[in-house]
Amino acid sequence: MNIIEQGTIASPKGFYADGVHCGIKRKRHDLGLIYSEVPATVAAVYTTNKVKAAPILVNQETINRSGKIQAVLVNSGVANACTGVQGLSNAQKTRDLIAEKLCISTDLVGIASTGVIGKQLPMHSIAAGVDLLNAVSGNPQHFHQAILTTDLTTKELTVSQMIQGKEVTVAGVAKGSGMIHPNMATMLAFITTDIAIEDKLLQSTLKECVDQSFNQITVDGDTSTNDMVMVLANGQAGNPPLTANDQDYPVFKKMLLTVTEDLAKKVARDGEGATKLIEVQVTGSASVASANHIAKTVVGSSLVKTAIFGEDANWGRIICAIGYADEDIQPEKINIAIGGVAVLTAGEPCEFSTEQMTHVLKKDTVVITIDVGTGDKSGRAWGCDLTYKYVDINAAYHT
Amino acid sequence: MNIIEQGTIASPKGFYADGVHCGIKRKRHDLGLIYSEVPATVAAVYTTNKVKAAPILVNQETINRSGKIQAVLVNSGVANACTGVQGLSNAQKTRDLIAEKLCISTDLVGIASTGVIGKQLPMHSIAAGVDLLNAVSGNPQHFHQAILTTDLTTKELTVSQMIQGKEVTVAGVAKGSGMIHPNMATMLAFITTDIAIEDKLLQSTLKECVDQSFNQITVDGDTSTNDMVMVLANGQAGNPPLTANDQDYPVFKKMLLTVTEDLAKKVARDGEGATKLIEVQVTGSASVASANHIAKTVVGSSLVKTAIFGEDANWGRIICAIGYADEDIQPEKINIAIGGVAVLTAGEPCEFSTEQMTHVLKKDTVVITIDVGTGDKSGRAWGCDLTYKYVDINAAYHT
Repeated sequence: MNIIEQGTIASPKGFYADGVHCGIKRKRHDLGLIYSEVPATVAAVYTTNKVKAAPILVNQETINRSGKIQAVLVNSGVANACTGVQGLSNAQKTRDLIAEKLCISTDLVGIASTGVIGKQLPMHSIAAGVDLLNAVSGNPQHFHQAILTTDLTTKELTVSQMIQGKEVTVAGVAKGSGMIHPNMATMLAFITTDIAIEDKLLQSTLKECVDQSFNQITVDGDTSTNDMVMVLANGQAGNPPLTANDQDYPVFKKMLLTVTEDLAKKVARDGEGATKLIEVQVTGSASVASANHIAKTVVGSSLVKTAIFGEDANWGRIICAIGYADEDIQPEKINIAIGGVAVLTAGEPCEFSTEQMTHVLKKDTVVITIDVGTGDKSGRAWGCDLTYKYVDINAAYHT
Repeated sequence: MNIIEQGTIASPKGFYADGVHCGIKRKRHDLGLIYSEVPATVAAVYTTNKVKAAPILVNQETINRSGKIQAVLVNSGVANACTGVQGLSNAQKTRDLIAEKLCISTDLVGIASTGVIGKQLPMHSIAAGVDLLNAVSGNPQHFHQAILTTDLTTKELTVSQMIQGKEVTVAGVAKGSGMIHPNMATMLAFITTDIAIEDKLLQSTLKECVDQSFNQITVDGDTSTNDMVMVLANGQAGNPPLTANDQDYPVFKKMLLTVTEDLAKKVARDGEGATKLIEVQVTGSASVASANHIAKTVVGSSLVKTAIFGEDANWGRIICAIGYADEDIQPEKINIAIGGVAVLTAGEPCEFSTEQMTHVLKKDTVVITIDVGTGDKSGRAWGCDLTYKYVDINAAYHT
């Protein structure tokens, strides 16, 4: 698999993207467009929050109806969540505006919003921004910027590989920087690819990849009202439509997983106030689900997160979190290591070199490995440390 | 119901208590004893953490065997969790030491530990401390102090009332100050009463009261390896043993709930780094369980907690947390108020006076009321704000 440096969401054949400043945010880009020269097969997963933002509701309806998407319009600054009938109407209006500009059916337009909950979209600004967007000769980097809120960096990855004799490219871009923000809902990720693929297979593959990537990260445990991951496959690579039985299917799945996992880790690393990425690897588990659950519970523990911020090898907090994950474990079989340095063997503390431990805890990525000793399945999860800055960002923020 | 000011865990008839410094902690009291002049009917609930500390395992065995407890020995500073066979042996030894001193059966001794995980009890200090303890003429306030770790205050409540023509007293004492501490496991609470009551009824009543009090608080979402709530009823009030059918049973239950709820709120208010107590009241729910779950989810949200610390009426974070509690809700029916000031009506934001809101958010207790509008059941939960100090306590702490 080749990683394309400087790749963008518009790297796969037949995709374009742009971003502009339309006035929702004070200064930075706040409106972005992805455009495919032909309608693309689409798959999407949405937030499980019972309170869903208007764009999520509108997308679900659109995608159920058409099964194809040719353009996606995204705004940051306002989440259009908890905005009632007016919010729904504004989401539909936004969809109509971009369909009109591009001369395509409204059934081919996806939308997404991220930002403050409870505020209506400034439709005048959105309309002006839609006018400014350049569908086929815009700057794709501006799209990457236009979807950010409190994120410190853009997050993208582009990979390519030969599939069925054709070069296939998969590009992804995401924004975080928590499962939810200070009243600024949302984790969003968009993935484009030029592969031709059956729609149901695209959906099931996306679901599987998301379960192992985005669904395994946590910044603060709060699940947003606006979360969405969407993949568009426009078939411009020229391969015959990929099916589950093709020998190259695992190759594509690996590409998609590589992109989702990379973006997920970038979102975790850029979690609000974070100074370190924490990766928890669980092995020796009776099931993948159990391993993933233990990993996510440990990486989500406030006490583990503060310990890593404080660069302290506090394994007591790790085993405590393993214990309350409520999976079937036997404490006396558990081994734990931090950055490869063993701290607990068969459920009891072991001696380790303080110097070596200080060294691994000073790194900007800390890997915690847990062998639960009851099977042969494994799982991983990612998060970040909990810092003064997290409290600062979220307590200083005023609605 | 009378609240007894200056009441202690030794206020109910026939109970005594003491506390001493034996050297597990540097300076403060670290070993405490509760003693009843006769064996008391006992009920207890323990942590649900799969990793259970040695004293929890020993107590479960003792209480299953005897059903009565006459003395409880508690140490702070070392949790005796993740200490293997040696830890279990030390817990049993501790129990034997106090049985010998008091000339009672080891089957009548309960034990509890709170403090650092993974360290063995210093048995020499414990033995010296047991010698120093004064079973019948000690200072009960010293017991209240001896069970603390990072707690800033002792937490106690004593109430009395006439039941079946006799004056019955219920006294409780607890320590927090999180569901877990910086590697210092434990929420502990001890309750004494002189009522005579059937043992099964005492257990079911305790369970019911704990579900509505201690199980509805959260400081950081981390459930300790050492949590325990224990109630001793020694029958010295002289009433005929209380049964579920007695007309005075609800009176006793109310007394026990008053004590557990008060202690639970005191633990939440003294949560690590906390500046405010947050109470979430959920009404209009389809079931009590659903109402309690929504209340606990909201009060446990890092974003709600930081908003309250920042004194910001961030209702977007509240409705977001309601949404991910995964209960059956209809967003358009939800009303939310903060300190009695309406912020969301029928799922949409409403205007409120900034002045009035600033006033309620400046108080040291902030009450969030949520009407979900789908039934007539209600529930409550308590927590505290998330502050710089929480990060400080937990990141600065080194194992």
